[in-house]
Amino acid sequence: MSRRDRIPKTRISYHTTDAIYVRGANLVDELIGKLTFTEMMYFQLLGKRPDAAQTRILDAVLVTLMEHGLTPSVIATRMIYNSCPEAVQAAVAAGLLGVGSTFIGTMEGCARLLEEILAAPEGEASRAKQVAQRHRAAKRPIPGFGHPIHKPDDPRSPRLLGLAEEAGVPGKHIRALRLLAADVDEVYGRHLTINATGAVAALLGEIGIPQEVMRGIAVVSRSAGLVGHIREEQLDPAARFIWEMTEEQVPYTDEGA
Amino acid sequence: MSRRDRIPKTRISYHTTDAIYVRGANLVDELIGKLTFTEMMYFQLLGKRPDAAQTRILDAVLVTLMEHGLTPSVIATRMIYNSCPEAVQAAVAAGLLGVGSTFIGTMEGCARLLEEILAAPEGEASRAKQVAQRHRAAKRPIPGFGHPIHKPDDPRSPRLLGLAEEAGVPGKHIRALRLLAADVDEVYGRHLTINATGAVAALLGEIGIPQEVMRGIAVVSRSAGLVGHIREEQLDPAARFIWEMTEEQVPYTDEGA
Amino acid sequence: MSRRDRIPKTRISYHTTDAIYVRGANLVDELIGKLTFTEMMYFQLLGKRPDAAQTRILDAVLVTLMEHGLTPSVIATRMIYNSCPEAVQAAVAAGLLGVGSTFIGTMEGCARLLEEILAAPEGEASRAKQVAQRHRAAKRPIPGFGHPIHKPDDPRSPRLLGLAEEAGVPGKHIRALRLLAADVDEVYGRHLTINATGAVAALLGEIGIPQEVMRGIAVVSRSAGLVGHIREEQLDPAARFIWEMTEEQVPYTDEGA
Amino acid sequence: MSRRDRIPKTRISYHTTDAIYVRGANLVDELIGKLTFTEMMYFQLLGKRPDAAQTRILDAVLVTLMEHGLTPSVIATRMIYNSCPEAVQAAVAAGLLGVGSTFIGTMEGCARLLEEILAAPEGEASRAKQVAQRHRAAKRPIPGFGHPIHKPDDPRSPRLLGLAEEAGVPGKHIRALRLLAADVDEVYGRHLTINATGAVAALLGEIGIPQEVMRGIAVVSRSAGLVGHIREEQLDPAARFIWEMTEEQVPYTDEGA
Repeated sequence: MSRRDRIPKTRISYHTTDAIYVRGANLVDELIGKLTFTEMMYFQLLGKRPDAAQTRILDAVLVTLMEHGLTPSVIATRMIYNSCPEAVQAAVAAGLLGVGSTFIGTMEGCARLLEEILAAPEGEASRAKQVAQRHRAAKRPIPGFGHPIHKPDDPRSPRLLGLAEEAGVPGKHIRALRLLAADVDEVYGRHLTINATGAVAALLGEIGIPQEVMRGIAVVSRSAGLVGHIREEQLDPAARFIWEMTEEQVPYTDEGA
Repeated sequence: MSRRDRIPKTRISYHTTDAIYVRGANLVDELIGKLTFTEMMYFQLLGKRPDAAQTRILDAVLVTLMEHGLTPSVIATRMIYNSCPEAVQAAVAAGLLGVGSTFIGTMEGCARLLEEILAAPEGEASRAKQVAQRHRAAKRPIPGFGHPIHKPDDPRSPRLLGLAEEAGVPGKHIRALRLLAADVDEVYGRHLTINATGAVAALLGEIGIPQEVMRGIAVVSRSAGLVGHIREEQLDPAARFIWEMTEEQVPYTDEGA
Repeated sequence: MSRRDRIPKTRISYHTTDAIYVRGANLVDELIGKLTFTEMMYFQLLGKRPDAAQTRILDAVLVTLMEHGLTPSVIATRMIYNSCPEAVQAAVAAGLLGVGSTFIGTMEGCARLLEEILAAPEGEASRAKQVAQRHRAAKRPIPGFGHPIHKPDDPRSPRLLGLAEEAGVPGKHIRALRLLAADVDEVYGRHLTINATGAVAALLGEIGIPQEVMRGIAVVSRSAGLVGHIREEQLDPAARFIWEMTEEQVPYTDEGA
Repeated sequence: MSRRDRIPKTRISYHTTDAIYVRGANLVDELIGKLTFTEMMYFQLLGKRPDAAQTRILDAVLVTLMEHGLTPSVIATRMIYNSCPEAVQAAVAAGLLGVGSTFIGTMEGCARLLEEILAAPEGEASRAKQVAQRHRAAKRPIPGFGHPIHKPDDPRSPRLLGLAEEAGVPGKHIRALRLLAADVDEVYGRHLTINATGAVAALLGEIGIPQEVMRGIAVVSRSAGLVGHIREEQLDPAARFIWEMTEEQVPYTDEGA
């Protein structure tokens, strides 16, 4: 795949002396003041404008993922802001680097399971059961299910799923998730909640966000949350307190690891 | 400022077994499905809900800053995605690290000038002229004015300012910017456009975003733009082409620098 | 694994009013001026001082991985430096984010194969052949072998392996790599060079660097290379040239992807 | 500065099918196994090989800056490693983003003062006194002096300065630093230690590292330190403990900030 063989193209944006175009629309005349951020994000990403239901669902997902208190990402952001207050973007970037497998990997894993179920030639119900059994047999957690704190049920999930159903999206991914949820409870012999990442995987599937870029949606939402924590760090700094507490509470030892 | 003396607190979020609270509101009952991303971002950042005008203005700013083609940030993101496709968040973070002084510093610089003008005991008009003269005398560019491509006028600025005026915000920052613009043209002896960063500085000031965290607004908007470019890189990869072109067009020499 | 149950400890460093200790040694009296960077890095990482052979091998690896011209990592670093010259650390960080699966993943993958071969109950020779056959059957590239440019042989590999053999390290990992190399050529029916990542995987195994942290060795070496490119960007800037070339050579189209 | 006008060049590296060249030297024949990491880093950065004294000093600086316990950078790295263990490079990058103004800015600030003193037409002694008086009058801390923990003296500084003097470098920067130190004590009316960043600024100046890229030296050294903490996090994880402790000890309040 040398550059001799193929010239890549961009379909996103270009500009002239007096105009900027995004996905073929004039930024000034057709987008600023006419689209919300959420509509613009969908449009820039997928090249088509979202309908009202898609916008409502994407907003719900973005609102859900923005904030969850003093998480590892937030702590990283506050540490870097404290060391380098002149570069707010670096503090945000540091926190975003934590949007990795531990939390968001489960969203992607769940999205892949839903796609597997929807594409199964033997039928969705049969594949959903097989997916649950396969994970159970391998003693692996099933992505999108269970939560360490929110028990027995993650309160975000019914809200997100209900909202999508009200909005009247096609419903395929939600159907697959509900099939899987029933099988999970039966196969595991106890109730495992659909967690927020499971519900989000279904909702993003419903509005046509490809699994390969779902993590990016979480990154955008979380970036806003991190900016809020930087603001709080400006007003009521906690970084030095966390630093001193860590030095004090994680003792040095010279015994072998 | 030792930890003994002061316990920092957080006012942003906490959670219980069955609920998550953000700024005192129940995430599931009061925020998901009720706030747009833009409203939620404002609420999480400032601790109060935006009114319709504030939301409209913040949306306009976020839409404006999202996308400007194959910029250095975008090139960095595409390079890192190519090297490390398993970590979308790292590719976004790499691009965000470019939201620094060259572009966004001018927004912050302009915001500081507007605050200086609004707070001047001798009156706004007098201080605006003095600001223009001071920069001219020092042969320094005046932040928020001029554009290398969009001449004679940056098309985004009248749109953004007009939209804010229609929305009926207080108008102080816009008034200061317009005063300054008239003086800049007179003092420099030629027309310098209010550029997008200048207009954005005024709009964010109007809706109460502190100057110290304005850069964060750009970071959030740009993060969405970078996700769109990662998606395009998945569909029509350009990174290797840019890499090979760079190796070919930036020749090696052993002559002294 | 709650904090109630287990208090983590650190074995790396502590300080008093008048001294800093690293791995039990007094930084000022026992380390500064007595250890090279490479010895200190090994000592801080593994908690024991390297012998002369280990130091020689680690130096060789670090020298090998530092620089390979205008790579994607370097381009990312130069782009971010151009946008944000006030934060050299952010430009380095942006480039380091590219030390991911595409290049360095093959080092880790090769290291895992070598460990598999060395631990095989049925004998190393038998497992080496099985590893080659397994990858061939799955039509997967075998990590640590082959190179797109350096054909038929990567010149770095014999140098690195020869140097380690001269240094007199145990030689287990090198033996496993040579076994595998012979089987690869036979099973694939053509010569595939041991590439630099393959040789590095064997050398780092020889000196006791755990596979889980091998990527970190590449990160350190590459960080130095990126600093050199930032210095060149200060003296003879290329970022704007690459940016303009990219805008010019990657055309906009409105045809569907 | 359009690309039409000027073609940038690189003087660092190029490769052919069977060789890689760095700064004109054949990597395999002339560098691997012949240079230490420290020598290679100097050579790649400045385009000339260091002599023994320069190598000794650069090693001493790199050893000094590598490790200082559970600092904010280390905490950020451990947080990101915990969230995203598949991307060691992202965890290192997150920590490096903290190599900013708070700590390293003082090194650069001190280096600029030393250059100012050395270049003063009125003589070094006169300018050194003026620098001390200027900072005192402005009630600003003087970069490179004072330390919150290491009192009355930072133990690293006499060791670093002594080692450089033994090595027989020209000594100009050290002379300027000692002049300044005497004036600081006199002008401030109490003893302020030359701290490690002050001593490092003088040593890097002595070996010809330009002030504009000094921060990069700290970045390289610190990257090694962060890799050691990732290894410890693999063996004895502390990130979750720090996270839970932070949630517990930084309480939520709904009172106004």
